[in-house]
Amino acid sequence: MSEKTFNTASLIRKKRDGEELSKDEIQYLIRAYTEDKIPDYQISAFLMASFLNGLNTDEATALTESMLHSGIVVDLSETPGKKVDKHSTGGVGDKLSLILAPIVAACGVPVPMISGRGLGHTGGTLDKLESIPGFTVDVDLDRYKEILKKQNLVLVGQTEEIAPADKRIYALRDVTATVESIPLIAGSIMSKKLAEGIDALVLDVKFGSGAFMKRHEDAVKLAETLVGIGERFGKKTIAYLTNMEQPLGNAVGNWLEVKESIDCLRGGGPDDVMEITHLLAGTMIYLGDMADSVEEGIEMSRQSVEDGTAFQKWVDIVEEQGGDTSVIEDPDSYPKADYIVDVPAPQGGYVSEMDAFALGMASLELGAGRRAKEDSVDPQAGFMLHKKIGDPVKKGETIVTIHTNKKEMADAAAESIQKAITIKQIAPKPLRQVTHRVDTDGIHDHIV
Amino acid sequence: MSEKTFNTASLIRKKRDGEELSKDEIQYLIRAYTEDKIPDYQISAFLMASFLNGLNTDEATALTESMLHSGIVVDLSETPGKKVDKHSTGGVGDKLSLILAPIVAACGVPVPMISGRGLGHTGGTLDKLESIPGFTVDVDLDRYKEILKKQNLVLVGQTEEIAPADKRIYALRDVTATVESIPLIAGSIMSKKLAEGIDALVLDVKFGSGAFMKRHEDAVKLAETLVGIGERFGKKTIAYLTNMEQPLGNAVGNWLEVKESIDCLRGGGPDDVMEITHLLAGTMIYLGDMADSVEEGIEMSRQSVEDGTAFQKWVDIVEEQGGDTSVIEDPDSYPKADYIVDVPAPQGGYVSEMDAFALGMASLELGAGRRAKEDSVDPQAGFMLHKKIGDPVKKGETIVTIHTNKKEMADAAAESIQKAITIKQIAPKPLRQVTHRVDTDGIHDHIV
Repeated sequence: MSEKTFNTASLIRKKRDGEELSKDEIQYLIRAYTEDKIPDYQISAFLMASFLNGLNTDEATALTESMLHSGIVVDLSETPGKKVDKHSTGGVGDKLSLILAPIVAACGVPVPMISGRGLGHTGGTLDKLESIPGFTVDVDLDRYKEILKKQNLVLVGQTEEIAPADKRIYALRDVTATVESIPLIAGSIMSKKLAEGIDALVLDVKFGSGAFMKRHEDAVKLAETLVGIGERFGKKTIAYLTNMEQPLGNAVGNWLEVKESIDCLRGGGPDDVMEITHLLAGTMIYLGDMADSVEEGIEMSRQSVEDGTAFQKWVDIVEEQGGDTSVIEDPDSYPKADYIVDVPAPQGGYVSEMDAFALGMASLELGAGRRAKEDSVDPQAGFMLHKKIGDPVKKGETIVTIHTNKKEMADAAAESIQKAITIKQIAPKPLRQVTHRVDTDGIHDHIV
Repeated sequence: MSEKTFNTASLIRKKRDGEELSKDEIQYLIRAYTEDKIPDYQISAFLMASFLNGLNTDEATALTESMLHSGIVVDLSETPGKKVDKHSTGGVGDKLSLILAPIVAACGVPVPMISGRGLGHTGGTLDKLESIPGFTVDVDLDRYKEILKKQNLVLVGQTEEIAPADKRIYALRDVTATVESIPLIAGSIMSKKLAEGIDALVLDVKFGSGAFMKRHEDAVKLAETLVGIGERFGKKTIAYLTNMEQPLGNAVGNWLEVKESIDCLRGGGPDDVMEITHLLAGTMIYLGDMADSVEEGIEMSRQSVEDGTAFQKWVDIVEEQGGDTSVIEDPDSYPKADYIVDVPAPQGGYVSEMDAFALGMASLELGAGRRAKEDSVDPQAGFMLHKKIGDPVKKGETIVTIHTNKKEMADAAAESIQKAITIKQIAPKPLRQVTHRVDTDGIHDHIV
């Protein structure tokens, strides 16, 4: 890494004036910030200038590299084979990691998965895993490698050693209104994923009312930036643009989503969840060199569910990481929330639209999410959707069932949920689950 | 003042997205920052968003008002008459305050002048005053009022009680590349000036190579913003757009400029200095109700120099503020710098252009300015220009004489100065000293 030093205010000025920063200049900013040689208030001004004036792919790559090298890059060579991970840009009801990780591992591709917690309207894989009694996501690097070697799979949280600069910068972005920037988001995602020690990466880039990128065109740009960065680091990266106009599946909330994932791994589960799961899993299997094509990977993915090897891998990893497998084998034995309330449809017709952001926020109010990083989440809280976009519904029929331990929140949440679901007299056009594939050759209409 | 509270990140986001902030929102940001309830890193992100997306006159007025009321507004009612001050946006060789303040006071208009120190390429009135042995610019508010009442004039530095929010925000802007923003500059100037207790204000807004606003159009915009804010506070405010394509007068450096000011007050001095001095002084006398028009004010200004009352006022204020009047009466008795070096013209022709910014920086290198706030300045250091734009010059003829106590800097400064002065074979068009007047009726080509 370069040891050049620069005048920080001059670098902020360059970005403020829309000029491009060199790799050395970006490395200096990130390194000096990590070493406490640059104060927060200069980096926050730089982040706002970057938010408003943008960073090109060279700059975003330099940012990624600087944050990546602020910590260690894990060496996973003890585990043979190409290590492949998946990253989702976050949505409501997105339990795909819980399903596809055991599938891909069962198909022979090692999956070293480092996940995050939910913040804002979205859930987080770690919170879902922790709803399983005893499941621990906090392990040190030696144990991380050990679990992967033994199980071909590991499901943990970010350790202190992984991209510490990203951790600090993310916390600063959160309080300075500089989160929703495509290059900053891309740098944050890729620095963490590259530090995991992966060989290839599949990205689930969501668009729509429940995604961070509401507009499809922004999601495309993010996908292109992510794939561009992956390519520059020599990692095969394939992104899919997937629909987040409504929650994924029927379950929203931590344990409720684990339960739905178990259904999926046992061959049941909602179609929308399984369509995207098999696509992403198949792509991971292909990138992990266990299939000659994505199609073949998808077929292997389906097979692993049918023959029970994926579910067995799920039981194995829960046990390996200290979780209670009895609730996995018998999900109905899990304790239920104190208040389970049906929400009726206020009118009849067809479900035509959902405000997935508002539904995510309602889940948060019921106890399933956190307003601030230090808040704890209620594993039992959330809701089940009985109707999805396109479904016919009668007036008074239950559209949603709320699960909560906060009785006082139930009425308000029921009202928010009713408002978030639009019912019309005419059936809407069916949603496309996956609109595009983005790889190093560009953007494609054909998905597989 | 409103006691409403807001979510700081949401306010930053609004400005980031180009929306207008309400008066209450801006007041909250400034008040909470002053009370240490908002950290530097959030305000720096807000400042960068404001820099890039702008603040309209309503917002700039709210900013001014919030910073103004972060400290006390001085009550000068003990001194009868309308109190009038002048503010310059800063330049090289700008000693006008030293000349016009005693003129205006001698003409019966009280001048409560709070000035700043030099930073960057520009000099500061306080540094010039402090080159007079014994002269103190640090006085408390009681003494400030007492001097004004007794002398009709006071020349001091900003106290802790005056606009403390501006002081903190200015320091933050300095290190986050958010200085050169018209609304932020305007808010900073006006909050301090309005806190002085003035009734009216004359503004010298400079454009050209030695000004902070290099482009005339930016200077016009700044002048309009300043006048707009003054108007909203019910203070008569007149601005002039004046030329800073070359240093003002011949002297650049602290004592050298005091010496030139003494020449001016004794009826000598360079024409460019006296033209602008009489215009600004005449306007102040008019705004202070001691003349019926600016023309009459200018005539009174000239008269006060001719009859010696202006010079006497200067001697009186130096004595009042503890300065040694013997060097005022006999400037040649002031000790000289150790190294006085003539810089020859590298070729013959006409002086056609000057890089006044580079000349200001050369003066700084010789010891006359400071790189950082805590640096001390050398009162003897600087240079005298023997030629100005339009003057014919022979090869080898002395164009500048350097004064310094840093022998090692003399050669490099001489070279910088030679480079900063362009000599061509054809005489340039004469410079217009004052291009426009801006008042509440708008911008005018006619100056008086």
